[in-house]
Amino acid sequence: MMKFTIDITIGLKEGMLDPEARAIRHALSNLGFPTDNLSTARVFQITLDAPDSDAARDRAEEMCARLLANPVIHRYTVEVRS
Amino acid sequence: MMKFTIDITIGLKEGMLDPEARAIRHALSNLGFPTDNLSTARVFQITLDAPDSDAARDRAEEMCARLLANPVIHRYTVEVRS
Repeated sequence: MMKFTIDITIGLKEGMLDPEARAIRHALSNLGFPTDNLSTARVFQITLDAPDSDAARDRAEEMCARLLANPVIHRYTVEVRS
Repeated sequence: MMKFTIDITIGLKEGMLDPEARAIRHALSNLGFPTDNLSTARVFQITLDAPDSDAARDRAEEMCARLLANPVIHRYTVEVRS
């Protein structure tokens, strides 16, 4: 078994309304920071034991499917670092 | 002016309690996914106009200082992509 650190980034699918991003963009604009676009995402950085990098990735994707992400509204990326 | 895309990642400082991370780690464990460690962060992906990459970074850091991050509890990283 080896230790792997995995970054799981979960954001909203294209076209989903993101009222929080809209509010932040508005607040930044009021502070004098205009932006063309702003989106938000969550990152879960996880350290776990796995036999190899592919197994670590599979486990992370299963965590997304089972708990972390809602497949109706979320897209996610999994990045395995050794 | 050029367009820059900036990833601002905001997490809790080392040593801050993260009850959400703890709850997620517990839930993953109950589902059969034991982890050594789990931390959470937020990412704001921002697109804006700036004269150059350094100016884009400065603006992003000011956004963190003024609105996005709480310097008492948060650490943040700014990554400028062209």
